[in-house]
Amino acid sequence: MTMFKSVEAVKYEGPQSTNPHAFKFYDPQEKIGGKTMEEYLRFGVAYWHTFTEDLSDPFGTGTANRPWDNFKGMDLAKARVEAAFEFFEKLGVPYFCFHDVDIAPEGDSLKETYRNLDEITGMIKEYMKDSKTKLLWNTANNFTNPRFVHGAASSSNADVFAYSAAKVKKGLEIGKELGAENYVFWGGREGYETLLNTDLKLELDNLGRFFHMAVDYAKEIGFDAQFLIEPKPKEPTSHQYDFDVASGYAFLQHYGLQDHFKFNIEANHATLAGHTFEHELRYARTHGMLGSVDANQGHPLLGWDTDEFPTDLYSTTLAMYEIIKNGGLGSGGLNFDAKVRRGSFEPEDLFEAHIAGMDAFAVGMKVAQKLVDDNVMEDLVANRYKSYTEGIGKDIVDGKAGFKQLEDHALGLGEIKNQSGKQERIKAVINQYLLRAYAGE
Amino acid sequence: MTMFKSVEAVKYEGPQSTNPHAFKFYDPQEKIGGKTMEEYLRFGVAYWHTFTEDLSDPFGTGTANRPWDNFKGMDLAKARVEAAFEFFEKLGVPYFCFHDVDIAPEGDSLKETYRNLDEITGMIKEYMKDSKTKLLWNTANNFTNPRFVHGAASSSNADVFAYSAAKVKKGLEIGKELGAENYVFWGGREGYETLLNTDLKLELDNLGRFFHMAVDYAKEIGFDAQFLIEPKPKEPTSHQYDFDVASGYAFLQHYGLQDHFKFNIEANHATLAGHTFEHELRYARTHGMLGSVDANQGHPLLGWDTDEFPTDLYSTTLAMYEIIKNGGLGSGGLNFDAKVRRGSFEPEDLFEAHIAGMDAFAVGMKVAQKLVDDNVMEDLVANRYKSYTEGIGKDIVDGKAGFKQLEDHALGLGEIKNQSGKQERIKAVINQYLLRAYAGE
Amino acid sequence: MTMFKSVEAVKYEGPQSTNPHAFKFYDPQEKIGGKTMEEYLRFGVAYWHTFTEDLSDPFGTGTANRPWDNFKGMDLAKARVEAAFEFFEKLGVPYFCFHDVDIAPEGDSLKETYRNLDEITGMIKEYMKDSKTKLLWNTANNFTNPRFVHGAASSSNADVFAYSAAKVKKGLEIGKELGAENYVFWGGREGYETLLNTDLKLELDNLGRFFHMAVDYAKEIGFDAQFLIEPKPKEPTSHQYDFDVASGYAFLQHYGLQDHFKFNIEANHATLAGHTFEHELRYARTHGMLGSVDANQGHPLLGWDTDEFPTDLYSTTLAMYEIIKNGGLGSGGLNFDAKVRRGSFEPEDLFEAHIAGMDAFAVGMKVAQKLVDDNVMEDLVANRYKSYTEGIGKDIVDGKAGFKQLEDHALGLGEIKNQSGKQERIKAVINQYLLRAYAGE
Amino acid sequence: MTMFKSVEAVKYEGPQSTNPHAFKFYDPQEKIGGKTMEEYLRFGVAYWHTFTEDLSDPFGTGTANRPWDNFKGMDLAKARVEAAFEFFEKLGVPYFCFHDVDIAPEGDSLKETYRNLDEITGMIKEYMKDSKTKLLWNTANNFTNPRFVHGAASSSNADVFAYSAAKVKKGLEIGKELGAENYVFWGGREGYETLLNTDLKLELDNLGRFFHMAVDYAKEIGFDAQFLIEPKPKEPTSHQYDFDVASGYAFLQHYGLQDHFKFNIEANHATLAGHTFEHELRYARTHGMLGSVDANQGHPLLGWDTDEFPTDLYSTTLAMYEIIKNGGLGSGGLNFDAKVRRGSFEPEDLFEAHIAGMDAFAVGMKVAQKLVDDNVMEDLVANRYKSYTEGIGKDIVDGKAGFKQLEDHALGLGEIKNQSGKQERIKAVINQYLLRAYAGE
Repeated sequence: MTMFKSVEAVKYEGPQSTNPHAFKFYDPQEKIGGKTMEEYLRFGVAYWHTFTEDLSDPFGTGTANRPWDNFKGMDLAKARVEAAFEFFEKLGVPYFCFHDVDIAPEGDSLKETYRNLDEITGMIKEYMKDSKTKLLWNTANNFTNPRFVHGAASSSNADVFAYSAAKVKKGLEIGKELGAENYVFWGGREGYETLLNTDLKLELDNLGRFFHMAVDYAKEIGFDAQFLIEPKPKEPTSHQYDFDVASGYAFLQHYGLQDHFKFNIEANHATLAGHTFEHELRYARTHGMLGSVDANQGHPLLGWDTDEFPTDLYSTTLAMYEIIKNGGLGSGGLNFDAKVRRGSFEPEDLFEAHIAGMDAFAVGMKVAQKLVDDNVMEDLVANRYKSYTEGIGKDIVDGKAGFKQLEDHALGLGEIKNQSGKQERIKAVINQYLLRAYAGE
Repeated sequence: MTMFKSVEAVKYEGPQSTNPHAFKFYDPQEKIGGKTMEEYLRFGVAYWHTFTEDLSDPFGTGTANRPWDNFKGMDLAKARVEAAFEFFEKLGVPYFCFHDVDIAPEGDSLKETYRNLDEITGMIKEYMKDSKTKLLWNTANNFTNPRFVHGAASSSNADVFAYSAAKVKKGLEIGKELGAENYVFWGGREGYETLLNTDLKLELDNLGRFFHMAVDYAKEIGFDAQFLIEPKPKEPTSHQYDFDVASGYAFLQHYGLQDHFKFNIEANHATLAGHTFEHELRYARTHGMLGSVDANQGHPLLGWDTDEFPTDLYSTTLAMYEIIKNGGLGSGGLNFDAKVRRGSFEPEDLFEAHIAGMDAFAVGMKVAQKLVDDNVMEDLVANRYKSYTEGIGKDIVDGKAGFKQLEDHALGLGEIKNQSGKQERIKAVINQYLLRAYAGE
Repeated sequence: MTMFKSVEAVKYEGPQSTNPHAFKFYDPQEKIGGKTMEEYLRFGVAYWHTFTEDLSDPFGTGTANRPWDNFKGMDLAKARVEAAFEFFEKLGVPYFCFHDVDIAPEGDSLKETYRNLDEITGMIKEYMKDSKTKLLWNTANNFTNPRFVHGAASSSNADVFAYSAAKVKKGLEIGKELGAENYVFWGGREGYETLLNTDLKLELDNLGRFFHMAVDYAKEIGFDAQFLIEPKPKEPTSHQYDFDVASGYAFLQHYGLQDHFKFNIEANHATLAGHTFEHELRYARTHGMLGSVDANQGHPLLGWDTDEFPTDLYSTTLAMYEIIKNGGLGSGGLNFDAKVRRGSFEPEDLFEAHIAGMDAFAVGMKVAQKLVDDNVMEDLVANRYKSYTEGIGKDIVDGKAGFKQLEDHALGLGEIKNQSGKQERIKAVINQYLLRAYAGE
Repeated sequence: MTMFKSVEAVKYEGPQSTNPHAFKFYDPQEKIGGKTMEEYLRFGVAYWHTFTEDLSDPFGTGTANRPWDNFKGMDLAKARVEAAFEFFEKLGVPYFCFHDVDIAPEGDSLKETYRNLDEITGMIKEYMKDSKTKLLWNTANNFTNPRFVHGAASSSNADVFAYSAAKVKKGLEIGKELGAENYVFWGGREGYETLLNTDLKLELDNLGRFFHMAVDYAKEIGFDAQFLIEPKPKEPTSHQYDFDVASGYAFLQHYGLQDHFKFNIEANHATLAGHTFEHELRYARTHGMLGSVDANQGHPLLGWDTDEFPTDLYSTTLAMYEIIKNGGLGSGGLNFDAKVRRGSFEPEDLFEAHIAGMDAFAVGMKVAQKLVDDNVMEDLVANRYKSYTEGIGKDIVDGKAGFKQLEDHALGLGEIKNQSGKQERIKAVINQYLLRAYAGE
């Protein structure tokens, strides 16, 4: 059965093309910095936003018009698998990602849930044999069901902790079965609504215990995917424990988990936490903790997670800059944790939105690689910090100076001369690179 | 004397130029949509940010290195005039703007302040004879001096109201003398710190009275500049009465002032109020109230007025779109109410920052005009709303339908069919236009 | 049938009571400022939050445990009516409010929806005969159903405009039938997602037309309830046209509607718009536009509408201060547009939350009335602005002064002397009043 | 000389007192929870806000009317010392805090700055002999002077690093000389304006080196004060490295500094970072890192550091709750990092503001102690988490369970039963405690 009848395979047709179902900038075979786009831009389709999302919002029921709308239960789950692989193929995307509940409905018992998962996992495995699309990561949805009302691994209820553990255990097994390259932990309910009724210490300790158990079990079954924590500051909680990369890193160090995890960084989560996307990427990169990316964007004036498809070329450029400087994302990728707007309810919008996002990252990669090739930021930085490569600066960096030597140096200084930071110029230069990228200069 | 020794006249050198003191996109003589850039992009230099700003911030004293640094008092004021006109000429900018206190120091008495203003006004008038740069607008700074601690026209102190009136009176006279095309009211202290000690009604009524007096006096002296209100939601106040364009428009209507004022819209003030820049422009345009623009940008993650030079090409494109649809800004212009960052303290940074901003608007104009020429948004909108051009929709618009007829119509409807809003596609199209603009496609 | 078995009638038991199902501060018969609490605190129960809300959020399905959970369709609607009136009686609340879809399910056709509404309206009317609880206001939910995806009266689709009109027409009829004292318009979808596909002017004009039609039809059927607009800046839209009271007032004036509407002000909507609750109340009061209140509170660190029950005594005190200064709310009231947290899912929580809110307003009323009785703010204000009661200040207020006279006055002034605004002291005084209120001082 | 002529010694006069220069709630000798208020509420006066602040803001020059206004240079510095100790005595406050530049003006050379500091340090030491007021902490202001434009220990300029080191070295010596109980590091410029020109890794590494040098030098001179890091997310920077307690803790662990530092937590910095004040206190307490408090409050609707005096009794109650649960602040205290509003410019306002803050914390202490005494939150928490004290929950906490056992347990569970979180009730209970505290119940 063909689910997306109106859309043929999506191909690169170039910027002048007015075909809404064609790439204008993403050319899988185009080489940039010695790598094909396809190789480097490890795009993933988010199963939940693309195949299970109905486009409801807190003030409205779903608007989505989907080819599988008239199926129910396990038939619906199967129709979605079929649609998914058709979508992956038409779009030519190398990866996908899912939560357990995205692929199979929960049963009346955990046992039945397992059975449902097993059946669909088997079906997906079959489809994967004939597909170029692989599993970037999977995860357990431990937040939607009412049982997780007070958290999962940080629930006030030990039964919920156990239930969460069982779901993650199954998730690790499914990940292994399907060859997932990563396994993600997003603690949607791992936080609190109010401190007034919360035992913060016990909850954090339990979270630490839970992650250790997950590490142990993955080792036990020989599942060697990269573990990833996905920070978000709030929503649905008032405070989520993995607020941002820095607080996640504090947690990992405190509980001795820093060697087992990296971070899955989402643009919209970064901005909700008061950071730029590139800040979170840079902080993680600098600490050797950059694992994967949830590629989307937020609305700068809205205070919730809008999960828009990424189209801001400044953001994709600066993100790709960090990724290139990181030597790529390793086993990670660029998962489109993005949903079409509620008003974009037609099946075609799913294609157009992914194309918009893939094109935006293609441009970003091109501009960022050119910036790197020309050492634009590197030269600026080398020049700004050159005082640390000689004299007292070198002594500081080499650990040869203490407060006394530094005081001696300072007492001998006349007026200190600083250089302009040139922020306006560098922004203008980035505009030039952006506009010139497509012109092939 | 040459103040800015290191910078020759700034000229268009094209995108490949690496000369930091050259335009890459702004070519004054380039024609777009039948108009030269120079004609349409009525850029103004803000006297305060460029010639009096020392780049202090709430946690640091000034860093600015300025050629006129070793002058004081009226000599400083004169050196600034000299520097200003050198700067205007080198940059080739058609307009400038100032507050009274920017051009001349306050004296020990109002009378002395007047004398200082008169002397510098005369000097400026002389310089203007030999300059192509004109006065876009002037205004009175009724917020910096401690006397305005509780407001100016909305002060709790009637003496302060009177003093403010005297300053605006003088401002109108100076505006007339120098041929200002507009006169601006930014009520930096016209608001409150706390409602607990505030007579909101009296303050608003007094503000209304003050504006009527200004209208009357301008008429009396035959000063026919466009009056402009500049909204800002807060900072330094907790609440400023002209919060945004809509609240300013409510005020003008309530006090019968709507025919005498338009709005001077600042990008960073828009975002502080929770709006996009283009929203404020559109709202004003739609109500026939778009007067002029304070061209800058804010930092989306910072909660205060950063007044950065505008470099975001999305923002300049959407702003220029509104301006083009408005048929231009009439007597208004694009005043760079923007300051270099505290770390960009060299005189050259002033040029580079203005170049960055002017280039960004040049690109914006080009992209926006192309979008208009191709009817990109117009066709989309015409198609979305076409139901209002016939049948029941036309009856609604023509005022021929009431609730009863509409109910009859509704009862006869089957399932209502809506169209996708295509938000993702339109964003991708704008990216295409942006990238293609420079390539000349 | 008794729905809320575990809760007896709620009565005043005083602050020392540990009965969670008792008022500690709200004593209906207590007289304050010459009025009983019951008379002045015209509390309303929001049908949607209390009887139809399932406590789902964007990341989780409903948690609510409700006595009527096992009913469906019209039986569910009827069970809710039964539960509602039991709840109203046990709580002793004078008013309730509803949207059309809260009381009766939508049918397969508008005609069937009407039938459902008629049946439940009849049932409610019967229940009201034996109840002291009256209808504060009703409204039409023109935002939840997918047909309103692009707006209702501001939809891009004329059929949707017509459908919306039919629903409001029916709402006005139901309001009349049930003796509603007000009729509310909350334009949840009357705004836009992006300007890029939006005809702002047509949408605003259509909104203006719609309101005129509503005014006309109410007049035609002799329904003399107060019409109320409820502003909200955003969510679910990116921008809602009735952003705040000021922008709503601009709209009403522009379309000649200001004599037919007042505002229904919600605390959480105020803070989302960047205002304090008391600001919106004060602005509306000052302009004669304060109609009614949606009593709730937001979380100061969360960027969406949390609709919490109001417990902040500062907020209830300052709100009651405005209401007392307004001479009460006229036909308006204090509708608890508030929902229990997702973690407070037991039926008892509905009582405890309403008690928390009613107690908070009872304290607020007591403190505010004492502040008014002692002229705390009034004396401070009279003293601050006394310069407008004589001399040049009086001339200003009386319209006898123009810029020339004011300049003469200003030129004769020496250094202007301002008074301290005493913000810290007034906040300390409010703390004293708050703490002393209960002690009966 | 008597600087504050109009204010006699401030004494406890009780809630009914209308004397603005008297405590209404803070009674130094009153015992609460076995401790006198004086003993437990280790208040500190911030030298900068009280004795050097001129109440300027980004749009206005200073308004402050201060008794020492007509002094200059070192005479001014000395007059401030005199005023400070008079103020401390009249207010009866046990501590004060300062930055180096607060007490003595910077000289033309570092050597002269040292001399100035030495002279004033000597004078302060003399005054301290006759005073009960001690030094809570001192710090170096490494942010105001233009030399710190690009940071201090994280400057791009090694000379600035050295200069900063010299200033902190001197600060440690002064701290020792005056018996400071803590030494604070607030990295006002330790962050970045834009990542585009920033070597994040080098800056963080240098910051780590700097802190190690400070630890070493303090040890060398035998200065055993507690070292404190004061987080703030931004302002003046776009991003400050010590964003919040969690990110500071990540940094300390990463650089092996966690045993040498605790945190100085400021309420307004917490809210700017998107956290409640009590969250930051709880997080620090839970990790054994709660050192001291900068007691103030922000404006929930303003995006910058307003540094208001703390008057919100909810905030002081929840803060004192954390402090009581921490067993007090050890060597730390409650430093009023708060300034009077620009409109509160009279010397008396300094007293009234401190009284407002001290009274607010006195009430907070009383309410919090009563909550602790009655185990209000403790009982709620014990009940919520009781499943971790037995069975599978105990196994989890004791480290006896892994994913397999937990899965076994989960498979055996029927529907999981959660308890209501009772958030509304607990908020109502806190209101009762607040109102009853003063009534002595």
